[in-house]
Order: sequence, then C-alpha cells, then structure tokens
Amino acid sequence: MSRALWARYQEYLCVHEAIGLSVDPSRMKFGDGFFAELEPRMQAAFSAMDALERGAIANPDEQRMVGHYWLRAPGLAPEPALGAAVTAALDKIRRFVAEVHAGRVAGARGTFTQLLVVGIGGSALGPQLVAAALGGAADKLRPFFFDNTDPDGFDRTLGAVERGEGGLGRTLTIVISKSGGTKETRNGMLEAAAAYQRAGLDFARHAVAVTGEGSELDKVATAGGWLERFPMWDWVGGRTSELSAVGLLPAALQGVDIEAMLAGARDTDAITRRHDTRQNPAALLALLWHHAGGGRGARDMVILPYKDRLELMSRYLQQLVMESLGKERDLAGAVVHQGIAVYGNKGSTDQHAYVQQLREGVPNFFATFIEVLEDRAGAGASMAVEPGATAGDYLSGFLLGTRRALYENGRESITITMPRVDARQVGVLIALYERAVGLYASLVGINAYHQPGVEAGKKAAAAVLTLQAKVLGALAAAGGGMTAEALAETVGAPEEVETVFKVLEHLAANPDHAVRAERVAGQPFATRYARAAGK
Amino acid sequence: MSRALWARYQEYLCVHEAIGLSVDPSRMKFGDGFFAELEPRMQAAFSAMDALERGAIANPDEQRMVGHYWLRAPGLAPEPALGAAVTAALDKIRRFVAEVHAGRVAGARGTFTQLLVVGIGGSALGPQLVAAALGGAADKLRPFFFDNTDPDGFDRTLGAVERGEGGLGRTLTIVISKSGGTKETRNGMLEAAAAYQRAGLDFARHAVAVTGEGSELDKVATAGGWLERFPMWDWVGGRTSELSAVGLLPAALQGVDIEAMLAGARDTDAITRRHDTRQNPAALLALLWHHAGGGRGARDMVILPYKDRLELMSRYLQQLVMESLGKERDLAGAVVHQGIAVYGNKGSTDQHAYVQQLREGVPNFFATFIEVLEDRAGAGASMAVEPGATAGDYLSGFLLGTRRALYENGRESITITMPRVDARQVGVLIALYERAVGLYASLVGINAYHQPGVEAGKKAAAAVLTLQAKVLGALAAAGGGMTAEALAETVGAPEEVETVFKVLEHLAANPDHAVRAERVAGQPFATRYARAAGK
Repeated sequence: MSRALWARYQEYLCVHEAIGLSVDPSRMKFGDGFFAELEPRMQAAFSAMDALERGAIANPDEQRMVGHYWLRAPGLAPEPALGAAVTAALDKIRRFVAEVHAGRVAGARGTFTQLLVVGIGGSALGPQLVAAALGGAADKLRPFFFDNTDPDGFDRTLGAVERGEGGLGRTLTIVISKSGGTKETRNGMLEAAAAYQRAGLDFARHAVAVTGEGSELDKVATAGGWLERFPMWDWVGGRTSELSAVGLLPAALQGVDIEAMLAGARDTDAITRRHDTRQNPAALLALLWHHAGGGRGARDMVILPYKDRLELMSRYLQQLVMESLGKERDLAGAVVHQGIAVYGNKGSTDQHAYVQQLREGVPNFFATFIEVLEDRAGAGASMAVEPGATAGDYLSGFLLGTRRALYENGRESITITMPRVDARQVGVLIALYERAVGLYASLVGINAYHQPGVEAGKKAAAAVLTLQAKVLGALAAAGGGMTAEALAETVGAPEEVETVFKVLEHLAANPDHAVRAERVAGQPFATRYARAAGK
Repeated sequence: MSRALWARYQEYLCVHEAIGLSVDPSRMKFGDGFFAELEPRMQAAFSAMDALERGAIANPDEQRMVGHYWLRAPGLAPEPALGAAVTAALDKIRRFVAEVHAGRVAGARGTFTQLLVVGIGGSALGPQLVAAALGGAADKLRPFFFDNTDPDGFDRTLGAVERGEGGLGRTLTIVISKSGGTKETRNGMLEAAAAYQRAGLDFARHAVAVTGEGSELDKVATAGGWLERFPMWDWVGGRTSELSAVGLLPAALQGVDIEAMLAGARDTDAITRRHDTRQNPAALLALLWHHAGGGRGARDMVILPYKDRLELMSRYLQQLVMESLGKERDLAGAVVHQGIAVYGNKGSTDQHAYVQQLREGVPNFFATFIEVLEDRAGAGASMAVEPGATAGDYLSGFLLGTRRALYENGRESITITMPRVDARQVGVLIALYERAVGLYASLVGINAYHQPGVEAGKKAAAAVLTLQAKVLGALAAAGGGMTAEALAETVGAPEEVETVFKVLEHLAANPDHAVRAERVAGQPFATRYARAAGK
C-alpha cells in the first residue's frame, strides 16, 4: 500500500516553487475519474472567475464588483480609476508608516510604540492573523485589538496597553470599519477615546480611520481632525480585505514587509488564475473540498498547521470559508443550505486535544495539514533533545505520524507544504484560499461574496435595544416595582415578555441604568424591577 | 409564538442560584415525550456515575478508577489514602505558593514575577483557560506557555519571557506531564533548561514538576534537585485534571482564588449528582446533546461565550468533549464511531465571522450561548455609547438578537447564564461540563475515560524518528548524493519511501544535521541528498 501511495503522491502533487507551495491531495480518496467528471464545472468556474477579475458584477445581490485581486495588481482593475485608487492608498500607507516609524508623526508622550486596532470580523481577523504569524520581538509597534463590544474586554486590553511601553500616550489607534457603522467598532472607538481623555490625551492626535469615503466613521474622523484617513471600497469584501488598508496599514506599522505580502499574493494569483486544473493549487483545493463533502459541506474542514505562528489560520479561514460558502440559496434561487464548517488550532497540540475523535470517532471531517519546513529563524542549529533528533524533528514526525494514523482509519487529509512562515508566504496562503473559496462557490453554484444572513441578527439586536429603551422609560415612569410580564404589557410588547425579562436581568446586574431587582426566593419570574428616581 | 416560547422557557429553565447557574433548553426543539423516553437511560447513567464516584473501575480498558470528583471533595474518595493524598497535595500547593508570593522561594534575580508552564493537552488547556479567564493586571505571576514542540514557538515565547519583568531570572518554570514521558513536554523542558543555562542561570532553582510518582519527569526533577515536585495520580485523566495540581498550582501562583474554584466545582458536583433529571443541569446538557445529534454526534457543538475572558472555553471543551466522546467502540465492543465536534470562539465577534453560515448554511450544528450578566468588574457605571445604552447593553442585545435569528431559521441553541466570570464560576463551568460529558457517555454506552486512538499517532511518529535516524546514518555512510528512493532501499524500508522523502525535505530545510539537497529543476523527486562528512 505504501508504494501505491508514493506513486499517488508523485502523480498528484501540485508543486509551485515560485510561490514556495505544494499541495498534496494523495490522502484524499477520490477515484480515477474524479477530475475528469468535474472538469467541465471547473472550467465554468474558471470562466466565472475571469469575468469577476474583469469587473463583472460578481456579487449580483448587492450589484457590486468583486475586486480583491486588484489590490495586489492594480493594473488589472477594469477601470483605471480603481487601479489608481489602490496605488494611491498604498502610497499613502507607505508615507504615513514612514512618518510614524521616523517619529515625525508621534503620540503625546513620544514616538508610537504600540498599536490599538479597533475592528471586528473582516476588520480584525486578517490583522490578527498577520500580527500573530509575523510579529515578535522585532515589532516596530506592538499590536493590541478591540474586536468585540465586551466592556470587560475593553478594560483588560486597555490595562495591557497602559502597562505597555509608553502607555496610551505612545499608542496609535486604528479604527477600521468599511461601512463605518458597525456598532461593536463604534463602541470600541468611544471607549478608547474615553480612555485617552481620562489619561489627559487628545484622542484625535492618536487616531486614524480605515473606512469607506463618506461613511459615519469617515465623518467622525474628518470632523475630529484625526491624524489620517485611509480608504476602503465597496468592491472589497471584509473577509477578503487583508491586502487593502485594513490589513496593510497595521501590518506595515508593526514592521511587516507588506511589499512581500502583496508579491506573494500577486504571484499566487498568477498561478491560480490558470485554467489547468491539476496544476492550479486553488482549483485543486476546491475540488478536494467538493470530494470530501459531496459538494454539500457534509464534512467539516479541520485546519492543522504544525507551527505556532499559524494558530489563528483556522479562525481566519472560519470567516473566509463559512461566510462565503454558508448560503441558503444557490444562484438560481433554490434552497441549498450550503457551507463548510471550519475549526482547528495547531499541531501537534491538537493531537493531545481531539485526535482521539478524529481517528476513532464520528467521521464527519477532513483534515488539512499545513507543514512548514524551517524549524526556526536564523542560521543556528537546534539543540538535540535526544541523540540525533531536535524538537523540530519531533514536530515533523508528529505531523507525518498523525496523518498516517488518520489515513489508516479512513480519514482523509490534504497536506500543504511551505518552506517557512514569512510575509511572502502569508500572502501566498491568503491568496490561495481566497481563490479556492471563489472557485468552490462556482462549483456548487452560489454567490460567495454576499452575506444576507448577517443582517437578521443585527436587526434583532437593534430591536432588543429599542425594547430596552422602552422598558427603561416605563421603569422610570412606574411608581413601584414591576414584573417582566407587567412591563412587557406596559411597553405594548406582550409577545416580547421573554426578551423583556432577559433585558431586565442584564440591567439589574449592572449599575448603569440604576435598575434593581426585588427577588422572590425560588420564583425567578416573580422578580419585580424598579429604577431609581431621576434616572 | 413568542408567548409559547416564554411558557416553554419558564417550564424548562433549570436554575440553581447556589452556583449562579441557569441552563435554558427552550430553544432546543425536543418534543413533549423526550424526557420521559430517555429517563430510564438517564437513571442508568446516574447509577453508573454513582458507582464511578464510589471508586468503581469506570475506565475498564485501563483498569483505573476515575476520581476527578474527589479532587474537590477528598472526603468522598473511596479509600482514605486517596483523599489524604488530595489534601496533602493541596496543602503542599498552598505552602509553596505562599513561599513564592512572600519571596522566600525566589529566582536568581529576585522574587518570581513570571511563570512558564510547560505542558500539552490536558496539561495545558485547563491552565490556559484559567489564565485567560481569570488573569489580568493583578496577576502575581504572569503566565506563559510552551504547549507544543515548535522550535520557533519556543523562541518566541522565550523572547517574551526575557522581555517581561525580570526575565528568566525571575521566572518559575512548571513542567507538567502526568506520565512524565510526553515528548513535546520533554522537548520544551530541555529547550527551557538550555535557555536558563544560556542566561547563566541554574534551571533547577527555577523549576518545579507536576507528575506521577516515579515517572521519568519525577526522576529528572529529583535527580536535578528541582525546587519542588507535585503529584498526579493515574485515577485523574489529563482532560479532567484542572482541579488537581496541574491546574491549581499555576492558577494559585498567578493569584487565582483556588479555594473558590474548588468550592464552585464541589457545589456544582453536589447539584449535578442528583438523580432528578430536569433539575440537574449536567443531565439536562447531556440530554440536549443527545437530542441535537440523535445520540450519534450528527451535529457539531458551537460554543459562543459572549465574554472575551471565556474565549478559550471552546478549546478546553474541544478536548474534554471530543477526547471523551470520540470513540470507535461502545462498551459492548460494537463499532459506533461516536463523538461530538466542538468549535467556537466568542460572541459577538463570531457573528461577524460565521453566523452567516450558522443562520443560512448547512444545518449541522447546535449552538451553546454562554451569557454573563455583569459587564465589567468594579462598581463604576459604564459610559453611554449612545443615549440610554452601554457597550455591555449591546453585547447583551447581540446575544439575544443572534439567538433569535438562528431560532427563526430552525437552528437550535442552549443558553447558559452566569452572573460573572470569577474563580468560583470557572469551577462551576468545569464541573458542569465534566459531569455532562460523563452522563452523555453513559447515555450512548461508551467509555469516556480512555483515549485508545491517541497512541497510533504517537507510535507512527516514533517510527518516523527511527526512520530518520537510519536515513541520517545512511547519508553519513554514503559517498555522494542519494535520492529518496535509493535511501529507502539502503535503510531497508522501500515501502516507506514517501516518509523518507518527507523526512529528507525537512532535514534539508534545517541546518541541524548538515543535510543538503541537490535539486533538479522541475523534478522534485529526483533530488539527491547528501550529508557533510563527520556529521
């Protein structure tokens, strides 16, 4: 069997030395006719991708072009103005970063040493991936993140920023929101601004914005006289925005070689643009995903990079893959409930967490091993942990051993191999997966570039806050304590009594709105809520 | 519908004020007869759990008792000696931590300010969960982790330790391995010891061990004259070891109130030990998991804590749930391929990453929302981010809104509510899930306490390292460059040629063994490998 596998490995291995990438599909058990069977659909997917790159309205619901590939090749943009905008934004980033690094743009307490990135989803996961993959002792600015609307989370991060080198007075805050209206980011911005104010610092002199022109955030930054504003465009989706100012600005400030990251993505695009399926690593991934889950997402994608720096890769891919592919309807409008679930952390760590289930348990997944050949930076040799073996030899051995143990039990896996983790290779990985997701979406006939299901939760949350305002008003007007049932009646929302109850329990647990609870032992729904006068 | 849901919520809500916990199953669409139908199996599960707590051989494959419940109630241990060992270990932890905090046990450069925990899997995930959930600015010792065998990961963590307060000379290293033979941990220990040595420091004076008596690690620590050794026992599994020295020692050193953590777990045990299914929150969880996945793990468990501090909860549960439940065979020996896949990070952040798929895509999951009522520590009020609303009101609104958006599309969820995240509540969560996993395993008839599938990967990795040694020997003996094919023949492992090739590519990418590759353009398998003389 091993000789047969070796033959299969050699036959199917897709190697591109120019981008330091190989994709090994040999542990996926597709049959001989698989590629031929899907070839017509893959060719159609290539054509759709070509049209997208030429500026077609590839996101029909939102009537938008999809242009993340132009971010690293502005010359390919279908309208010269778009390419010029990309180039101008890049120049602006380079100039601003040079000013910051030279100390000519500085904080109130000195040159900037720290970076607070305020963003969520597509405005956080890329920057977090890059910060974790490429950051370290040599960081020019040390990055921190507000990526939620958790008040305690704000406090903890601010505490770490304040304890860090120079504190807030040497911290540059980047507020990132394409739409400029994301509430979590707005809240984070306000909490950050308040912290600067408490420290006696002028927030505007420590703040830049990355956002769409004319957005709410753009107006705030303009009116406030912030240090700088960087553009986002409606033809770049949040989950594919890492190589726009969203990702490039924090990365460059941190000290990452963004030219190498862009070049890695650009060179990968050149290879994954080709219509030669077997030699196109993105097409290969898309087909393997199709094989694994029958084109219906029947198997989860477990991402196992054997390298600590890539620990956030699975979170990045969770967004890129699940938000792109998790769709109710196909392009023809039929209900299909598509998607692929993604999870994973890193090897060999995850072997000690859940390889038990992967090997023996419910066979509802396929694994992607990401192998990195270089063990550590610098030319120095590693110590031997036993005669003839280093810690890195063990890491490599665990990858190969785990892959074998899974394969022996019929569990499939893809292996991606790279020489090292650097800015160029991170650009390669980002571009590889962006293209694979787009091609897979074509194979299964869905729009990868919208997210119609996200609005419902936001609208429902807005309704909760509206209801909260009404409840607070009713409590202020009430003479004594009222139950959730009575309050729901009073605000004219008897159907919403459970939400009223949940809102009241949250209000009563916090001092902000002076709501207190009068409880009855053993009867949680008999609680009466009251609000201090004058609130 | 909302009134009906409110009635369902009130009917099924499981509230236990004594442990600050409520579990809301109302968004799981089990039918009226569901509890009655599973009641006989749940009663059998309770009986099995009772036997386990009394000291039955609940892990029949390994002929071991399962005693993690005794860690927080030593009086319940079936043999007085076991309870006495727990109590003695706790006393030892308390004494040692007091000495460290008082500076009577100190590093070469002064009182200990930092902690380097070396462990993996069950010896890392609990400490990491607790460090993230309960740590912060007030940490008495700041924790760092070696949780892999990645050389670059070691370097980065050591770099951060060295830049931290006092550097290695004020860093206490805790090496944790129950068996004492885990290779990743052994490698981390050796790399850490070498770093101390390079810094001119005596590792032994900065090191303690947590391990089984007489283990390899125990011998190393004894022979080396380490500061202290703390026990582990074969009746505590790695994934349920957080409330043994494995978790308590780092937590106490960090400054966590371990008595509160133990009390939270103990009080939760008292409640989840009861045979009253509907009022037992762990039994309820087990039944809901059974409902969601048909007792076959057909749906993934998505964990969504709306609180940054609990971001590692899903990784902790990945191990606890997947390693416990992911089993090939049931207790009768039949092949069942059980398990439940677990993933998730935190809300509302994950809404912006993959709620699109959860709401509209492949319906292969159920969600668990973890709601925390208190927004931030301290009595101070939060700022308003708009009239009448705080950032915490938004966090609460997003939880409720997302839950509703999922429910409307037929996606089920459980909601767990707690007043706050503190040591006691973390103890509650740990005990809750430990018991739920044990009960679920009984419901589906599997052994939750072994991990027979983990060995295969380790053995295969060991075989890779053995093969590497042979290849290195052959290369040293060879006159000139050899291909992978030729080397596989030479070492007598022609079947293993692919592994030989993978090993060679890793060796050639690193300086450690002086292996170099002579490549042929476009022919990756024609590469000839050679080794410098004298190596």
